[in-house]
Amino acid sequence: MGLDTDPRRLPVGMQANERDVLRFNRDIIEATQAYAVAYKINIAFYEAMGPQGWAILQETLQYIPEGIFTIADAKRGDIGNTAEQYARAFFEVMNFDAITLNAYMGHDAVSPFLAYRDKWAIVLALTTNPGAADFQYRTDEQGIPLYLSMAQAAAEWGNPDQMMLVAGANRTAELSELRTAIPQHFFLIPGVGAQGGSLTDVYNAAAASTGPCMLVNASRSIIFASSGQDYAMRAGDEASRLQSEMSSLLNSGTAPYIG
Amino acid sequence: MGLDTDPRRLPVGMQANERDVLRFNRDIIEATQAYAVAYKINIAFYEAMGPQGWAILQETLQYIPEGIFTIADAKRGDIGNTAEQYARAFFEVMNFDAITLNAYMGHDAVSPFLAYRDKWAIVLALTTNPGAADFQYRTDEQGIPLYLSMAQAAAEWGNPDQMMLVAGANRTAELSELRTAIPQHFFLIPGVGAQGGSLTDVYNAAAASTGPCMLVNASRSIIFASSGQDYAMRAGDEASRLQSEMSSLLNSGTAPYIG
Repeated sequence: MGLDTDPRRLPVGMQANERDVLRFNRDIIEATQAYAVAYKINIAFYEAMGPQGWAILQETLQYIPEGIFTIADAKRGDIGNTAEQYARAFFEVMNFDAITLNAYMGHDAVSPFLAYRDKWAIVLALTTNPGAADFQYRTDEQGIPLYLSMAQAAAEWGNPDQMMLVAGANRTAELSELRTAIPQHFFLIPGVGAQGGSLTDVYNAAAASTGPCMLVNASRSIIFASSGQDYAMRAGDEASRLQSEMSSLLNSGTAPYIG
Repeated sequence: MGLDTDPRRLPVGMQANERDVLRFNRDIIEATQAYAVAYKINIAFYEAMGPQGWAILQETLQYIPEGIFTIADAKRGDIGNTAEQYARAFFEVMNFDAITLNAYMGHDAVSPFLAYRDKWAIVLALTTNPGAADFQYRTDEQGIPLYLSMAQAAAEWGNPDQMMLVAGANRTAELSELRTAIPQHFFLIPGVGAQGGSLTDVYNAAAASTGPCMLVNASRSIIFASSGQDYAMRAGDEASRLQSEMSSLLNSGTAPYIG
Protein backbone atom coordinates (compact mmCIF):
# COMPACT_ATOMS: atom_id res chain seq x y z
CA MET A 1 0.00 0.00 0.00
CA GLY A 2 1.37 3.32 -1.04
CA LEU A 3 1.41 6.29 1.33
CA ASP A 4 1.66 9.07 -1.24
CA THR A 5 0.25 11.62 1.15
CA ASP A 6 -0.30 14.86 -0.71
CA PRO A 7 -1.09 17.50 1.95
CA ARG A 8 -3.23 19.37 -0.56
CA ARG A 9 -5.48 16.34 -1.02
CA LEU A 10 -6.31 15.71 2.62
CA PRO A 11 -10.00 15.13 3.40
CA VAL A 12 -12.38 18.01 3.96
CA GLY A 13 -11.74 19.71 7.29
CA MET A 14 -8.02 18.84 7.44
CA GLN A 15 -5.23 21.33 6.82
CA ALA A 16 -1.93 20.96 4.97
CA ASN A 17 0.06 20.98 8.20
CA GLU A 18 2.22 18.54 10.14
CA ARG A 19 -0.49 17.62 12.66
CA ASP A 20 -3.13 16.77 10.07
CA VAL A 21 -0.76 14.90 7.76
CA LEU A 22 0.30 12.75 10.71
CA ARG A 23 -3.31 12.22 11.80
CA PHE A 24 -4.25 11.21 8.26
CA ASN A 25 -1.34 8.77 7.95
CA ARG A 26 -2.04 7.27 11.38
CA ASP A 27 -5.74 6.79 10.59
CA ILE A 28 -5.01 5.30 7.16
CA ILE A 29 -2.44 2.89 8.58
CA GLU A 30 -4.77 1.82 11.38
CA ALA A 31 -7.60 1.22 8.93
CA THR A 32 -5.54 -0.71 6.38
CA GLN A 33 -2.87 -2.60 8.33
CA ALA A 34 -4.96 -5.78 8.47
CA TYR A 35 -4.84 -5.95 4.67
CA ALA A 36 -1.32 -4.71 3.87
CA VAL A 37 1.84 -6.82 3.74
CA ALA A 38 3.88 -3.71 3.00
CA TYR A 39 3.68 0.07 3.07
CA LYS A 40 5.47 1.94 0.31
CA ILE A 41 6.14 5.54 1.25
CA ASN A 42 6.66 7.98 -1.60
CA ILE A 43 9.49 10.18 -0.35
CA ALA A 44 8.78 13.06 -2.76
CA PHE A 45 5.57 13.97 -0.96
CA TYR A 46 7.47 14.30 2.33
CA GLU A 47 10.35 16.29 0.83
CA ALA A 48 7.80 18.71 -0.64
CA MET A 49 6.75 19.47 2.96
CA GLY A 50 10.14 21.06 3.60
CA PRO A 51 12.44 20.49 6.57
CA GLN A 52 9.60 19.08 8.66
CA GLY A 53 8.91 16.44 5.99
CA TRP A 54 11.56 14.02 7.21
CA ALA A 55 10.29 14.33 10.78
CA ILE A 56 6.78 13.51 9.51
CA LEU A 57 8.23 10.57 7.61
CA GLN A 58 10.00 9.27 10.70
CA GLU A 59 6.87 9.63 12.82
CA THR A 60 4.76 7.91 10.13
CA LEU A 61 7.11 4.92 10.19
CA GLN A 62 6.39 4.60 13.93
CA TYR A 63 2.70 4.01 13.15
CA ILE A 64 3.47 0.97 11.01
CA PRO A 65 3.25 -2.23 13.07
CA GLU A 66 6.34 -4.41 13.44
CA GLY A 67 6.34 -7.17 10.87
CA ILE A 68 4.85 -5.10 8.05
CA PHE A 69 7.45 -4.51 5.37
CA THR A 70 8.40 -0.88 4.67
CA ILE A 71 9.58 0.46 1.32
CA ALA A 72 11.08 3.90 0.72
CA ASP A 73 9.91 4.77 -2.78
CA ALA A 74 12.84 7.07 -3.38
CA LYS A 75 14.27 5.97 -6.76
CA ARG A 76 17.75 7.02 -5.73
CA GLY A 77 20.88 6.29 -7.74
CA ASP A 78 24.29 7.92 -7.51
CA ILE A 79 28.04 7.21 -7.48
CA GLY A 80 29.35 4.89 -4.77
CA ASN A 81 30.28 7.36 -2.04
CA THR A 82 26.93 9.10 -2.45
CA ALA A 83 24.91 5.88 -2.69
CA GLU A 84 26.46 4.96 0.67
CA GLN A 85 24.94 8.12 2.13
CA TYR A 86 21.51 7.33 0.74
CA ALA A 87 21.80 3.81 2.15
CA ARG A 88 22.61 5.30 5.57
CA ALA A 89 19.69 7.70 5.29
CA PHE A 90 17.08 5.09 4.41
CA PHE A 91 18.38 1.90 6.03
CA GLU A 92 20.06 3.24 9.18
CA VAL A 93 18.54 6.59 10.06
CA MET A 94 14.97 5.83 8.89
CA ASN A 95 15.20 2.03 9.20
CA PHE A 96 13.23 1.19 6.07
CA ASP A 97 13.32 -2.45 5.00
CA ALA A 98 13.70 -1.60 1.33
CA ILE A 99 14.29 1.23 -1.13
CA THR A 100 13.51 1.68 -4.81
CA LEU A 101 16.59 2.50 -6.92
CA ASN A 102 17.30 3.83 -10.38
CA ALA A 103 20.30 1.96 -11.80
CA TYR A 104 21.01 4.10 -14.89
CA MET A 105 24.38 4.74 -13.23
CA GLY A 106 25.11 1.01 -12.97
CA HIS A 107 26.20 -1.46 -10.34
CA ASP A 108 28.06 0.89 -8.01
CA ALA A 109 24.89 2.95 -7.61
CA VAL A 110 23.25 -0.17 -6.18
CA SER A 111 25.96 -2.15 -4.40
CA PRO A 112 26.15 -0.01 -1.22
CA PHE A 113 22.52 -0.96 -0.53
CA LEU A 114 23.33 -4.66 -0.91
CA ALA A 115 25.91 -4.44 1.85
CA TYR A 116 23.10 -4.35 4.41
CA ARG A 117 21.78 -7.58 5.86
CA ASP A 118 18.00 -8.07 5.81
CA LYS A 119 17.48 -5.02 3.62
CA TRP A 120 16.26 -4.92 0.03
CA ALA A 121 17.19 -2.98 -3.07
CA ILE A 122 14.35 -2.65 -5.59
CA VAL A 123 15.65 -1.67 -9.01
CA LEU A 124 13.46 -0.01 -11.65
CA ALA A 125 13.10 -2.17 -14.72
CA LEU A 126 9.92 -1.08 -16.49
CA THR A 127 7.82 1.75 -15.13
CA THR A 128 4.13 2.56 -15.54
CA ASN A 129 4.44 6.07 -16.94
CA PRO A 130 4.29 7.20 -20.60
CA GLY A 131 7.98 8.17 -20.48
CA ALA A 132 8.89 4.49 -20.08
CA ALA A 133 8.70 4.42 -23.86
CA ASP A 134 11.56 6.91 -24.23
CA PHE A 135 14.45 4.69 -23.13
CA GLN A 136 13.26 1.54 -21.37
CA TYR A 137 12.08 -0.14 -24.57
CA ARG A 138 15.22 0.85 -26.47
CA THR A 139 16.66 -2.31 -27.97
CA ASP A 140 20.32 -3.09 -28.27
CA GLU A 141 22.09 -4.57 -31.26
CA GLN A 142 20.72 -7.99 -30.31
CA GLY A 143 17.18 -6.63 -30.09
CA ILE A 144 17.05 -6.85 -26.29
CA PRO A 145 15.11 -4.03 -24.65
CA LEU A 146 16.81 -1.98 -21.94
CA TYR A 147 14.23 -2.87 -19.27
CA LEU A 148 15.13 -6.54 -19.69
CA SER A 149 18.89 -5.91 -19.59
CA MET A 150 18.38 -3.75 -16.52
CA ALA A 151 16.33 -6.44 -14.78
CA GLN A 152 18.80 -9.18 -15.67
CA ALA A 153 21.76 -7.16 -14.45
CA ALA A 154 20.02 -6.34 -11.16
CA ALA A 155 19.11 -9.99 -10.67
CA GLU A 156 22.81 -10.81 -11.06
CA TRP A 157 23.91 -8.10 -8.63
CA GLY A 158 21.60 -9.21 -5.86
CA ASN A 159 20.13 -12.56 -4.93
CA PRO A 160 16.39 -12.98 -4.35
CA ASP A 161 16.88 -12.34 -0.63
CA GLN A 162 18.13 -8.80 -1.19
CA MET A 163 16.98 -7.66 -4.63
CA MET A 164 13.58 -7.02 -6.18
CA LEU A 165 12.56 -5.42 -9.45
CA VAL A 166 9.95 -2.83 -10.36
CA ALA A 167 7.68 -3.64 -13.28
CA GLY A 168 4.47 -1.73 -13.97
CA ALA A 169 1.04 -3.34 -13.65
CA ASN A 170 -0.05 -1.88 -16.97
CA ARG A 171 2.69 -3.68 -18.95
CA THR A 172 1.33 -7.20 -18.83
CA ALA A 173 3.11 -8.62 -21.88
CA GLU A 174 6.46 -7.40 -20.58
CA LEU A 175 5.61 -8.63 -17.08
CA SER A 176 5.27 -12.15 -18.46
CA GLU A 177 8.54 -11.80 -20.31
CA LEU A 178 10.34 -10.48 -17.23
CA ARG A 179 8.83 -13.17 -15.02
CA THR A 180 10.04 -15.88 -17.36
CA ALA A 181 13.54 -14.39 -17.57
CA ILE A 182 13.78 -13.77 -13.83
CA PRO A 183 11.69 -16.38 -12.03
CA GLN A 184 13.18 -16.18 -8.53
CA HIS A 185 13.18 -12.51 -7.58
CA PHE A 186 10.22 -10.65 -6.14
CA PHE A 187 8.63 -8.00 -8.32
CA LEU A 188 7.24 -4.78 -6.94
CA ILE A 189 4.33 -3.97 -9.22
CA PRO A 190 2.89 -0.45 -9.01
CA GLY A 191 0.04 0.90 -11.04
CA VAL A 192 -3.02 -0.98 -9.80
CA GLY A 193 -5.76 1.47 -8.86
CA ALA A 194 -5.45 5.12 -9.88
CA GLN A 195 -3.02 4.24 -12.66
CA GLY A 196 -5.45 1.72 -14.13
CA GLY A 197 -3.74 -1.67 -13.93
CA SER A 198 -5.93 -4.74 -13.40
CA LEU A 199 -5.07 -7.19 -10.66
CA THR A 200 -6.33 -10.16 -12.66
CA ASP A 201 -4.21 -9.20 -15.65
CA VAL A 202 -1.18 -8.78 -13.40
CA TYR A 203 -1.77 -12.15 -11.80
CA ASN A 204 -2.14 -13.88 -15.13
CA ALA A 205 0.97 -12.21 -16.50
CA ALA A 206 3.30 -12.41 -13.57
CA ALA A 207 2.16 -15.02 -11.10
CA ALA A 208 0.18 -17.77 -12.80
CA SER A 209 3.24 -19.56 -14.12
CA THR A 210 5.90 -19.11 -11.47
CA GLY A 211 3.96 -18.23 -8.34
CA PRO A 212 3.13 -14.90 -6.80
CA CYS A 213 6.54 -13.70 -5.70
CA MET A 214 5.37 -10.15 -6.07
CA LEU A 215 4.20 -7.12 -4.16
CA VAL A 216 1.35 -5.34 -5.92
CA ASN A 217 0.96 -1.72 -4.93
CA ALA A 218 -1.99 0.65 -4.93
CA SER A 219 -1.71 4.14 -3.49
CA ARG A 220 -4.12 6.90 -4.39
CA SER A 221 -7.11 4.59 -5.00
CA ILE A 222 -6.89 3.55 -1.35
CA ILE A 223 -5.73 6.58 0.61
CA PHE A 224 -7.91 9.02 -1.29
CA ALA A 225 -10.91 6.65 -1.64
CA SER A 226 -12.97 9.31 0.08
CA SER A 227 -12.39 13.01 0.64
CA GLY A 228 -14.98 13.04 3.41
CA GLN A 229 -14.73 12.30 7.10
CA ASP A 230 -15.13 8.61 6.33
CA TYR A 231 -11.68 8.57 4.64
CA ALA A 232 -10.19 5.97 6.97
CA MET A 233 -13.14 3.59 6.75
CA ARG A 234 -13.28 3.91 2.97
CA ALA A 235 -9.52 3.35 2.69
CA GLY A 236 -9.93 0.23 4.80
CA ASP A 237 -12.79 -0.94 2.57
CA GLU A 238 -10.75 -0.42 -0.59
CA ALA A 239 -7.70 -2.16 0.90
CA SER A 240 -9.90 -5.03 2.03
CA ARG A 241 -11.49 -5.29 -1.42
CA LEU A 242 -8.08 -5.47 -3.11
CA GLN A 243 -6.83 -7.97 -0.55
CA SER A 244 -9.87 -10.21 -1.16
CA GLU A 245 -9.36 -9.99 -4.89
CA MET A 246 -5.72 -11.04 -4.46
CA SER A 247 -6.72 -13.84 -2.14
CA SER A 248 -9.22 -15.21 -4.67
CA LEU A 249 -6.62 -15.12 -7.42
CA LEU A 250 -4.07 -16.88 -5.23
CA ASN A 251 -6.57 -19.56 -4.25
CA SER A 252 -7.57 -20.06 -7.88
CA GLY A 253 -4.01 -20.80 -8.97
CA THR A 254 -1.27 -23.21 -8.11
CA ALA A 255 0.72 -20.73 -6.10
CA PRO A 256 3.82 -22.30 -4.55
CA TYR A 257 4.03 -19.53 -1.96
CA ILE A 258 2.38 -16.28 -1.07
CA GLY A 259 4.15 -12.91 -1.18
CA MET B 1 31.89 23.77 -6.18
CA GLY B 2 30.38 20.75 -4.56
CA LEU B 3 29.27 20.81 -0.94
CA ASP B 4 29.35 17.07 -0.26
CA THR B 5 29.67 17.62 3.46
CA ASP B 6 30.26 14.27 5.14
CA PRO B 7 29.87 14.89 8.89
CA ARG B 8 32.34 12.08 9.56
CA ARG B 9 35.04 13.87 7.58
CA LEU B 10 34.90 17.23 9.33
CA PRO B 11 38.25 18.70 10.35
CA VAL B 12 39.93 17.74 13.59
CA GLY B 13 38.14 19.20 16.58
CA MET B 14 34.71 19.33 14.94
CA GLN B 15 31.88 16.94 15.77
CA ALA B 16 29.33 15.27 13.50
CA ASN B 17 26.52 17.49 14.73
CA GLU B 18 24.29 20.18 13.29
CA ARG B 19 26.25 23.08 14.76
CA ASP B 20 29.62 21.96 13.40
CA VAL B 21 28.29 20.96 9.98
CA LEU B 22 26.77 24.42 9.65
CA ARG B 23 29.95 26.09 10.86
CA PHE B 24 31.98 24.07 8.35
CA ASN B 25 29.66 24.90 5.45
CA ARG B 26 29.58 28.58 6.38
CA ASP B 27 33.37 28.78 6.61
CA ILE B 28 33.86 26.91 3.35
CA ILE B 29 31.37 29.11 1.51
CA GLU B 30 32.94 32.28 2.88
CA ALA B 31 36.41 31.11 1.85
CA THR B 32 35.45 30.00 -1.66
CA GLN B 33 32.65 32.30 -2.81
CA ALA B 34 35.05 34.62 -4.64
CA TYR B 35 36.02 31.71 -6.91
CA ALA B 36 32.74 29.84 -7.38
CA VAL B 37 30.09 30.58 -9.99
CA ALA B 38 27.90 27.83 -8.55
CA TYR B 39 27.52 25.64 -5.48
CA LYS B 40 26.34 22.08 -6.06
CA ILE B 41 24.92 20.55 -2.90
CA ASN B 42 24.89 16.77 -2.73
CA ILE B 43 21.54 16.01 -1.11
CA ALA B 44 22.48 12.48 0.02
CA PHE B 45 24.87 13.80 2.64
CA TYR B 46 22.11 15.91 4.18
CA GLU B 47 19.52 13.13 4.10
CA ALA B 48 21.99 10.87 5.90
CA MET B 49 21.87 13.37 8.78
CA GLY B 50 18.24 12.43 9.42
CA PRO B 51 15.31 14.78 9.97
CA GLN B 52 17.62 17.68 10.83
CA GLY B 53 19.40 17.27 7.47
CA TRP B 54 16.89 19.30 5.52
CA ALA B 55 17.04 22.09 8.09
CA ILE B 56 20.85 22.11 7.73
CA LEU B 57 20.44 22.19 3.96
CA GLN B 58 18.06 25.14 4.17
CA GLU B 59 20.38 27.02 6.51
CA THR B 60 23.38 26.26 4.26
CA LEU B 61 21.57 27.78 1.30
CA GLN B 62 21.23 31.00 3.31
CA TYR B 63 25.03 31.27 3.47
CA ILE B 64 25.37 31.34 -0.32
CA PRO B 65 25.45 34.91 -1.62
CA GLU B 66 22.74 36.10 -4.00
CA GLY B 67 23.84 35.74 -7.57
CA ILE B 68 25.76 32.50 -7.11
CA PHE B 69 23.96 29.68 -8.87
CA THR B 70 22.74 26.79 -6.66
CA ILE B 71 22.38 23.19 -7.82
CA ALA B 72 20.64 20.43 -5.89
CA ASP B 73 22.60 17.34 -6.82
CA ALA B 74 19.66 15.05 -6.17
CA LYS B 75 19.41 12.87 -9.29
CA ARG B 76 15.66 12.55 -8.89
CA GLY B 77 13.37 10.95 -11.46
CA ASP B 78 9.84 9.66 -11.01
CA ILE B 79 6.38 9.59 -12.60
CA GLY B 80 4.69 12.92 -13.30
CA ASN B 81 2.68 13.43 -10.11
CA THR B 82 5.75 12.53 -8.02
CA ALA B 83 8.18 14.58 -10.11
CA GLU B 84 5.89 17.55 -9.42
CA GLN B 85 6.47 17.01 -5.70
CA TYR B 86 10.24 16.88 -6.12
CA ALA B 87 10.06 20.08 -8.19
CA ARG B 88 8.10 21.73 -5.37
CA ALA B 89 10.62 20.48 -2.80
CA PHE B 90 13.72 21.73 -4.60
CA PHE B 91 12.49 24.75 -6.57
CA GLU B 92 9.81 26.16 -4.26
CA VAL B 93 10.54 25.05 -0.70
CA MET B 94 14.35 25.09 -0.94
CA ASN B 95 14.59 27.60 -3.81
CA PHE B 96 17.48 25.95 -5.65
CA ASP B 97 18.20 27.31 -9.12
CA ALA B 98 18.77 23.86 -10.59
CA ILE B 99 18.48 20.14 -9.90
CA THR B 100 20.19 17.10 -11.37
CA LEU B 101 17.75 14.52 -12.77
CA ASN B 102 17.87 10.89 -13.85
CA ALA B 103 15.69 10.48 -16.92
CA TYR B 104 15.58 6.69 -17.17
CA MET B 105 11.83 7.09 -16.69
CA GLY B 106 11.58 9.44 -19.67
CA HIS B 107 10.17 12.84 -20.47
CA ASP B 108 7.41 12.99 -17.86
CA ALA B 109 10.02 12.51 -15.12
CA VAL B 110 11.60 15.75 -16.32
CA SER B 111 8.80 17.96 -17.65
CA PRO B 112 7.44 19.12 -14.27
CA PHE B 113 10.82 20.75 -13.61
CA LEU B 114 10.69 22.58 -16.95
CA ALA B 115 7.42 24.24 -15.96
CA TYR B 116 9.34 26.60 -13.67
CA ARG B 117 10.62 29.88 -15.03
CA ASP B 118 14.31 30.66 -14.39
CA LYS B 119 15.00 27.18 -13.07
CA TRP B 120 17.15 24.49 -14.64
CA ALA B 121 16.89 20.75 -15.10
CA ILE B 122 20.25 19.01 -15.43
CA VAL B 123 19.83 15.53 -16.92
CA LEU B 124 22.42 12.77 -16.46
CA ALA B 125 23.93 11.71 -19.77
CA LEU B 126 27.29 10.12 -18.99
CA THR B 127 28.50 9.77 -15.42
CA THR B 128 31.99 9.49 -13.97
CA ASN B 129 31.61 6.22 -12.09
CA PRO B 130 32.62 2.70 -13.21
CA GLY B 131 28.94 1.67 -13.40
CA ALA B 132 28.49 4.09 -16.30
CA ALA B 133 29.75 1.20 -18.43
CA ASP B 134 26.80 -1.01 -17.48
CA PHE B 135 24.05 0.79 -19.42
CA GLN B 136 25.13 4.24 -20.57
CA TYR B 137 27.40 2.91 -23.34
CA ARG B 138 24.82 0.38 -24.48
CA THR B 139 24.34 0.90 -28.21
CA ASP B 140 21.03 0.62 -30.02
CA GLU B 141 20.41 -1.08 -33.32
CA GLN B 142 21.94 1.93 -35.11
CA GLY B 143 25.02 1.77 -32.90
CA ILE B 144 24.11 4.91 -30.94
CA PRO B 145 25.09 4.77 -27.25
CA LEU B 146 22.42 5.41 -24.64
CA TYR B 147 24.25 8.42 -23.15
CA LEU B 148 24.04 10.17 -26.51
CA SER B 149 20.36 9.34 -27.01
CA MET B 150 19.66 10.51 -23.47
CA ALA B 151 21.50 13.79 -24.04
CA GLN B 152 19.80 14.41 -27.38
CA ALA B 153 16.35 13.71 -25.95
CA ALA B 154 16.96 16.03 -23.00
CA ALA B 155 18.20 18.76 -25.35
CA GLU B 156 14.93 18.43 -27.24
CA TRP B 157 12.79 18.54 -24.08
CA GLY B 158 14.37 21.70 -22.76
CA ASN B 159 15.97 24.66 -24.47
CA PRO B 160 19.43 25.92 -23.43
CA ASP B 161 17.82 28.37 -21.01
CA GLN B 162 16.29 25.62 -18.88
CA MET B 163 18.19 22.40 -19.56
CA MET B 164 21.76 21.27 -18.96
CA LEU B 165 23.43 17.88 -19.23
CA VAL B 166 25.77 15.97 -16.96
CA ALA B 167 28.88 14.50 -18.58
CA GLY B 168 31.85 13.25 -16.57
CA ALA B 169 35.23 14.98 -16.67
CA ASN B 170 37.00 11.64 -17.04
CA ARG B 171 35.23 10.81 -20.34
CA THR B 172 36.98 13.22 -22.64
CA ALA B 173 36.35 11.44 -25.95
CA GLU B 174 32.63 11.25 -25.21
CA LEU B 175 32.63 14.85 -24.00
CA SER B 176 33.85 15.95 -27.42
CA GLU B 177 31.21 13.82 -29.12
CA LEU B 178 28.45 15.18 -26.87
CA ARG B 179 29.63 18.75 -27.32
CA THR B 180 29.53 18.39 -31.09
CA ALA B 181 26.06 16.82 -31.02
CA ILE B 182 24.68 19.35 -28.53
CA PRO B 183 26.53 22.62 -29.00
CA GLN B 184 24.10 25.04 -27.34
CA HIS B 185 23.32 23.56 -23.92
CA PHE B 186 25.44 23.98 -20.83
CA PHE B 187 27.20 20.89 -19.52
CA LEU B 188 27.67 20.21 -15.83
CA ILE B 189 30.97 18.35 -15.64
CA PRO B 190 31.75 16.61 -12.37
CA GLY B 191 34.84 14.60 -11.63
CA VAL B 192 37.66 17.13 -11.52
CA GLY B 193 39.66 16.74 -8.32
CA ALA B 194 39.11 13.71 -6.11
CA GLN B 195 37.70 11.72 -9.04
CA GLY B 196 40.78 12.43 -11.12
CA GLY B 197 39.59 14.39 -14.16
CA SER B 198 41.96 16.99 -15.63
CA LEU B 199 40.73 20.50 -16.29
CA THR B 200 42.92 20.90 -19.36
CA ASP B 201 41.61 17.67 -20.87
CA VAL B 202 38.04 18.77 -20.16
CA TYR B 203 38.64 22.15 -21.73
CA ASN B 204 40.20 20.65 -24.83
CA ALA B 205 37.39 18.14 -25.16
CA ALA B 206 34.37 20.23 -24.36
CA ALA B 207 35.14 23.89 -24.72
CA ALA B 208 37.88 24.49 -27.24
CA SER B 209 35.60 24.10 -30.25
CA THR B 210 32.27 25.54 -29.16
CA GLY B 211 33.09 27.71 -26.19
CA PRO B 212 32.99 27.03 -22.51
CA CYS B 213 29.28 26.69 -21.93
CA MET B 214 29.98 24.40 -19.04
CA LEU B 215 30.11 24.23 -15.27
CA VAL B 216 33.04 22.17 -14.04
CA ASN B 217 32.61 20.81 -10.55
CA ALA B 218 35.08 19.80 -7.86
CA SER B 219 33.91 18.79 -4.40
CA ARG B 220 36.07 16.75 -2.06
CA SER B 221 39.39 18.08 -3.36
CA ILE B 222 38.31 21.56 -2.22
CA ILE B 223 36.21 21.09 0.90
CA PHE B 224 38.48 18.44 2.39
CA ALA B 225 41.76 20.02 1.18
CA SER B 226 42.84 20.03 4.81
CA SER B 227 41.60 18.16 7.85
CA GLY B 228 43.26 20.66 10.15
CA GLN B 229 42.08 23.97 11.54
CA ASP B 230 43.21 25.65 8.32
CA TYR B 231 40.44 23.87 6.38
CA ALA B 232 38.73 27.07 5.21
CA MET B 233 41.92 28.74 4.07
CA ARG B 234 43.08 25.61 2.26
CA ALA B 235 39.68 25.21 0.61
CA GLY B 236 39.91 28.81 -0.56
CA ASP B 237 43.43 28.18 -1.89
CA GLU B 238 42.33 25.10 -3.80
CA ALA B 239 39.26 26.87 -5.22
CA SER B 240 41.45 29.80 -6.21
CA ARG B 241 43.96 27.49 -7.87
CA LEU B 242 41.23 25.80 -9.92
CA GLN B 243 39.68 29.13 -10.81
CA SER B 244 43.06 30.43 -12.05
CA GLU B 245 43.57 27.30 -14.09
CA MET B 246 40.15 27.77 -15.69
CA SER B 247 40.86 31.40 -16.32
CA SER B 248 44.14 30.59 -18.08
CA LEU B 249 42.44 28.03 -20.26
CA LEU B 250 39.67 30.45 -21.15
CA ASN B 251 42.15 33.20 -22.01
CA SER B 252 44.17 30.79 -24.11
CA GLY B 253 41.20 29.88 -26.29
CA THR B 254 38.65 31.66 -28.38
CA ALA B 255 35.89 31.44 -25.84
CA PRO B 256 32.77 33.23 -27.04
CA TYR B 257 31.49 33.62 -23.47
CA ILE B 258 32.25 32.50 -19.97
CA GLY B 259 30.01 30.16 -17.96
